[in-house]
Amino acid sequence: MSQSRYQRSDELLGRAERVIPGGIYGHQNPRFLTPGAFPCFLAEAEGCRVRDVDGNSFIDFMCGYGPIVLGYRHPRVEEAAQRQRRLCDTMNQPGEPLVELAERLVSITPGADWSLFGKNGSDVCTWALAIARAATGRELVAMVDDTYHGVHGWCNHVQTGFPDGDRSGIATFAWNDLGALEGIFADNPSRLAAVIITPFRHEALEDSQLPATGFLEGIRALCTKHGTAMIVDDVRAGFRLHIGGSTQCWRVTPDMICYSKALANGYPLSALLGGEALRTAAREVFVTGTFYTQSVPLAAALATVDELEACDAIGHMKRMGTRLGEGLLERASAAGFAVTISGPPSIPFMTFDQDGERFERSRVFAGTCAKGGVFLHPYHNWFISAAHDETTIDATLEVAEQAFAELRETKA
Amino acid sequence: MSQSRYQRSDELLGRAERVIPGGIYGHQNPRFLTPGAFPCFLAEAEGCRVRDVDGNSFIDFMCGYGPIVLGYRHPRVEEAAQRQRRLCDTMNQPGEPLVELAERLVSITPGADWSLFGKNGSDVCTWALAIARAATGRELVAMVDDTYHGVHGWCNHVQTGFPDGDRSGIATFAWNDLGALEGIFADNPSRLAAVIITPFRHEALEDSQLPATGFLEGIRALCTKHGTAMIVDDVRAGFRLHIGGSTQCWRVTPDMICYSKALANGYPLSALLGGEALRTAAREVFVTGTFYTQSVPLAAALATVDELEACDAIGHMKRMGTRLGEGLLERASAAGFAVTISGPPSIPFMTFDQDGERFERSRVFAGTCAKGGVFLHPYHNWFISAAHDETTIDATLEVAEQAFAELRETKA
Repeated sequence: MSQSRYQRSDELLGRAERVIPGGIYGHQNPRFLTPGAFPCFLAEAEGCRVRDVDGNSFIDFMCGYGPIVLGYRHPRVEEAAQRQRRLCDTMNQPGEPLVELAERLVSITPGADWSLFGKNGSDVCTWALAIARAATGRELVAMVDDTYHGVHGWCNHVQTGFPDGDRSGIATFAWNDLGALEGIFADNPSRLAAVIITPFRHEALEDSQLPATGFLEGIRALCTKHGTAMIVDDVRAGFRLHIGGSTQCWRVTPDMICYSKALANGYPLSALLGGEALRTAAREVFVTGTFYTQSVPLAAALATVDELEACDAIGHMKRMGTRLGEGLLERASAAGFAVTISGPPSIPFMTFDQDGERFERSRVFAGTCAKGGVFLHPYHNWFISAAHDETTIDATLEVAEQAFAELRETKA
Repeated sequence: MSQSRYQRSDELLGRAERVIPGGIYGHQNPRFLTPGAFPCFLAEAEGCRVRDVDGNSFIDFMCGYGPIVLGYRHPRVEEAAQRQRRLCDTMNQPGEPLVELAERLVSITPGADWSLFGKNGSDVCTWALAIARAATGRELVAMVDDTYHGVHGWCNHVQTGFPDGDRSGIATFAWNDLGALEGIFADNPSRLAAVIITPFRHEALEDSQLPATGFLEGIRALCTKHGTAMIVDDVRAGFRLHIGGSTQCWRVTPDMICYSKALANGYPLSALLGGEALRTAAREVFVTGTFYTQSVPLAAALATVDELEACDAIGHMKRMGTRLGEGLLERASAAGFAVTISGPPSIPFMTFDQDGERFERSRVFAGTCAKGGVFLHPYHNWFISAAHDETTIDATLEVAEQAFAELRETKA
């Protein structure tokens, strides 16, 4: 049954395995999903729905692992991109959208006086570290244990291939443990260039965790006191919680913000924003890439920001995520399962309280949802977009109810 | 005069300086060109021509610093991209173009059995080092002195912000000095994971240098003898010299090839290709990015490779570059200047033999050409595309003749 449902997808994976190490690499590797229960290759996307290469359709809650914040192929974004594309994209020099987007981001972001653009979240997180090091003349950077800040050597979760020296300037502390960070400052007087932190903890394979009262504020105060740059890695959460940067939800303004994913609704772009005090250092650090100033993604980002504001997307995603989370809690409870919904509503995640470290229940649940036409990840947070409405959330909850029921029979 | 010619460009630069460190950052920074003689912002591009925000038109020999190999907005590439765009681009899982492009590149590339895709040249050069280190269990990598392999800490030309530790695993030798590399191997028995090298030396601020007879072949033999991976950084030269990788011009097949720039005619994409012996290591190294498998650039790359083959673009660029180089030599000589044309014809560069380290003559010459409607860089190699034809080359030579004449008067 599952073989025929994903026959073309599986054939493509077979071809891929011959010419791509592992068939599919990185975060899209099929081993991260429930084998046999998910398509490995998709063919079409629109709004909050994707279709796989076998023609199966899904209500999608991964949004391309975050970038699709307004819905796939959003008309306003596509129109802006197409208008720009008819003129130019990659060139010797930037086009006007570079300036317009930098102005727009600076205007909506508390504490930001400048912006730089790259292509990956990894790019801008590493760039932020270099700027903090250049500004302070210090080398040490503090980050939360086992936090994903990209794939460069200093932070790659998998150390295979990266020399130990890549992590030599890094100290770590536990999420929400302000005392541990104070200890690092105390042990390294005048040595900390930066603290880099996500606005909430959103690691795969565990419940998401919001910042405890005073945690982000405490980091802000410590950084200010010690002349250390506070860097927020807002790559995953950015533009889903607050238009001015996610930590504004906790009234905390960092020294630098790293954006990517949702910034251009699927077009490849990342941005690093920072304050006046770091402008000179930002000018002295040399980072560039052939495609860093291509105009189409910058034009797409301008339209994305416009539309996020125009349709109150952030408020809408919060309402839809809340509806999803509450509905899942109800249906899990009715089926006799204790589940935890974690993270902010627009970047929700659900785990089964009794699940083992292999996430067996989540895998079966997500796999059954996939067969029912809903794309949820078994052990990575999900994403709501502005294209999810009450009808699609309610349809999702019906599929989830079925999946809880099937799971109960499996476990009975 | 020059103020009014670039008035809107200069205004934009003023706005940019308020919201972007340095106004324009990286390789497009206006300080790399002749101040006042070049536009800082472009607005339109088609074929081999670009137009700036003031409406000035140029025959362009920078090709976006390399990516535009078929000409800006090439109809066949744009059609393929648009067809894909109507279906999907960035998603949770890859689309079919991922597999098709990997198959296509493997099929045309001697020694390649697999391909991985990223967004920047920097990404794939660093990825290649990690794979070589994972495969060999060794850390040391040899590279040529002062070679640009991107902006990651191990190779960034400007060390500001990057800890010394980032370069700890790097040994360097001089271009074309095979003996020096032999010395590194001798001093570090069984310690070299990789040698990374460009197919020819194409650093800014100096004449390009082709490999001496036996240099690339010697590196190949040393790597094979010592179980070291030979990595070719073909980011800049790839797809202009040979469809199977630039070192095929010297009949040398490396263990890994890094591509970006011209691969997708301006769409953001990079690729790392390697042989069977490195497949397991390539699977074990975790590198990924949100946009690494987006379908539109992959579809654009497929169309680019098809068109490169269909129109014998590589042969055409060689002929056009030769016509340009010979024409410049003639006209320089007629005007009483000794110049050196260096590099392969399709990635040509010209320097004035009597020029100082500030490249004063080159700056004046390139600036005068810009005013005459030809975009040449004063101290970075140029790029020919398939859209340059005899008419545009000859028009360029007329402008160059004028520029040589004006330069002679300035110097007289």
